[in-house]
Amino acid sequence: MAKSPEEEHPVKAFGWAARDSSGVLSPFNFSRRATSEKDVMFKVLYCGICHSDLHSVKNEWGVSQYPLLPGHEIVGVVTEVGSKVQTFKVGDKVGVGCMVGSCHSCDDCTNNLENYCPKVILTYNSIYNDGTPTYGGYSDIMVADEHFVVRWPDNLPLDAGAPLLCAGITTYSPLKYFGLDKPGMHVGVVGLGGLGHVAVKFAKAFGVKVTVIRTSPNKKKEAIEHLGADLFLVSRDADQMQAAIGTMDGIIDTVSAVHPLLPLIGLLKSHGKLVMVGAPDRPLELPVMPLLMGRKIIAGSGIGGMKETQEMIDFAAKHNITADAEVISVDYVNTAMERLAKANVRYRFVIDIGNTLKAA
Amino acid sequence: MAKSPEEEHPVKAFGWAARDSSGVLSPFNFSRRATSEKDVMFKVLYCGICHSDLHSVKNEWGVSQYPLLPGHEIVGVVTEVGSKVQTFKVGDKVGVGCMVGSCHSCDDCTNNLENYCPKVILTYNSIYNDGTPTYGGYSDIMVADEHFVVRWPDNLPLDAGAPLLCAGITTYSPLKYFGLDKPGMHVGVVGLGGLGHVAVKFAKAFGVKVTVIRTSPNKKKEAIEHLGADLFLVSRDADQMQAAIGTMDGIIDTVSAVHPLLPLIGLLKSHGKLVMVGAPDRPLELPVMPLLMGRKIIAGSGIGGMKETQEMIDFAAKHNITADAEVISVDYVNTAMERLAKANVRYRFVIDIGNTLKAA
Repeated sequence: MAKSPEEEHPVKAFGWAARDSSGVLSPFNFSRRATSEKDVMFKVLYCGICHSDLHSVKNEWGVSQYPLLPGHEIVGVVTEVGSKVQTFKVGDKVGVGCMVGSCHSCDDCTNNLENYCPKVILTYNSIYNDGTPTYGGYSDIMVADEHFVVRWPDNLPLDAGAPLLCAGITTYSPLKYFGLDKPGMHVGVVGLGGLGHVAVKFAKAFGVKVTVIRTSPNKKKEAIEHLGADLFLVSRDADQMQAAIGTMDGIIDTVSAVHPLLPLIGLLKSHGKLVMVGAPDRPLELPVMPLLMGRKIIAGSGIGGMKETQEMIDFAAKHNITADAEVISVDYVNTAMERLAKANVRYRFVIDIGNTLKAA
Repeated sequence: MAKSPEEEHPVKAFGWAARDSSGVLSPFNFSRRATSEKDVMFKVLYCGICHSDLHSVKNEWGVSQYPLLPGHEIVGVVTEVGSKVQTFKVGDKVGVGCMVGSCHSCDDCTNNLENYCPKVILTYNSIYNDGTPTYGGYSDIMVADEHFVVRWPDNLPLDAGAPLLCAGITTYSPLKYFGLDKPGMHVGVVGLGGLGHVAVKFAKAFGVKVTVIRTSPNKKKEAIEHLGADLFLVSRDADQMQAAIGTMDGIIDTVSAVHPLLPLIGLLKSHGKLVMVGAPDRPLELPVMPLLMGRKIIAGSGIGGMKETQEMIDFAAKHNITADAEVISVDYVNTAMERLAKANVRYRFVIDIGNTLKAA
């Protein structure tokens, strides 16, 4: 018979977990494995709250296993390393993002694309190699294989930088892979939440002209003055949309609600690329003829590999890119989830684990 | 007041046209412009019947103007050239495909992608620069700007080669652009009609492993033994589909009926590309999560530019690629259209214009 979360490993750990699809998080005693030869153990200092966390705690994707301890934008300070760990030492600042394991032998793994490995092990709500569940970063300590640990640049803030481990790589990777990182290009960003606001920052850092596309005009001033977007397009304004037809090299679409693609396809130049990084839970309507007429592409992209995640973090540090974070106490996490569900956050909650998480 | 088709130009011409959306073709007296300085006039010898012709004569896309004289897989022999024509002389074998004009100044035109020019002029059912309707290849003579005329290789049969001007370039171009032309790759071809059977031949000539995907098993033997496909996959067979999951680098989808995309996306490897070259008249259902999970792409592609069309024809000649043609008399064209509507042709009707079209 399987041991309880509190007994299955030797190292006592503590965090906040959901026990069922009500999605309410509460204090949770569990355990972590001992630091094995290739593992890094670290004290968690901050953890971002991703929209995926909300989907997961409420089982909105239908795959949640409880208790579920979320969090995959995790930063902290190394407290112990295994005997074969090469990159890290005690005291280093580190991060862990969305994944903690993969097969290391498939085509994707050998091409530094562990995120697309069919056997990828997610940071929480997955089963690790040892058969036990993975638990995320809303917890006091973390243990991970060094392959999945990111070196944290000295000048990158831990709190506002943490969300880059998911929101950052999710937008950086497609901008690079789909060639939307060339100065002078024009890229649209649909949606201005956790992903969208970081997409704007990376695209601007690449030298790209950025248009934020939203259904409502109410973040226009902020998008342009604060985030540095060049233009703001209200998708419900037919005249604005008409004037923008055929002007964009690519679009990063961060919206995970069902929404129409046809107007977005129309904004693309010939050979333009509409990249979905949000995943609506129902199929979207795909008009095919508009794709044919301009050899346009609709693509999906999901986070990024570890090599590219490190590259992204280093790029962010160099260009002073962080998320806009509202740092909260762990006691506030359920309220934060409620606010997140209403998109009432600018733009990412980050839990101050180090100062506010205390074992019961 | 606009002149009649018979009077608007000085050169008498004769062909078969549809007069209304009944789609019945009948003999039609009209006229062609005189050969201007950059024009090539040629006697039409063969013209393929594309499925687009059927859609157009029946106004299934809602944009048909009558009288409508179809045909955009046109080959023949030059009878006259304008004073500034550089590439062709009287007696040369030539072809004209889906387009006869473009703006020559937009980004697409300057990149040899006239097919994506917003002002592209199609070979029939368009309005030419002089304000008169364009008429296609079901006719005795053709006049076209030399820029849109293809040199015909001596060893490429005129009859079975004619369909390459549409079906050939429509499949060759995306195989090249989306990088599905590398030896050792695995490419699926969905549908085995006029486009599909040519896609198989080009893909095989590139050294690619080809799997034909159809709802029914009834062309398996032919696909493998006659067309040279490596494998045949029945999309309604769940076991076969399951076994093929994640095995393909790309898919050329030639089906213009509404059909599910999810099983096709599943056949792709990570970073695989599903390219639509048929245009269903209603939107398809697009599941987004499966695109994200493997950074997959759904794209559209429409014919190809003139430079690439010439390259394709030269490649076909070198590799002995033609369509499988059923050569018919022009009197048979209405019966051929009925058979085409039932997919009762292997694989392309080609009208023997030179020997069977006689002026009334």
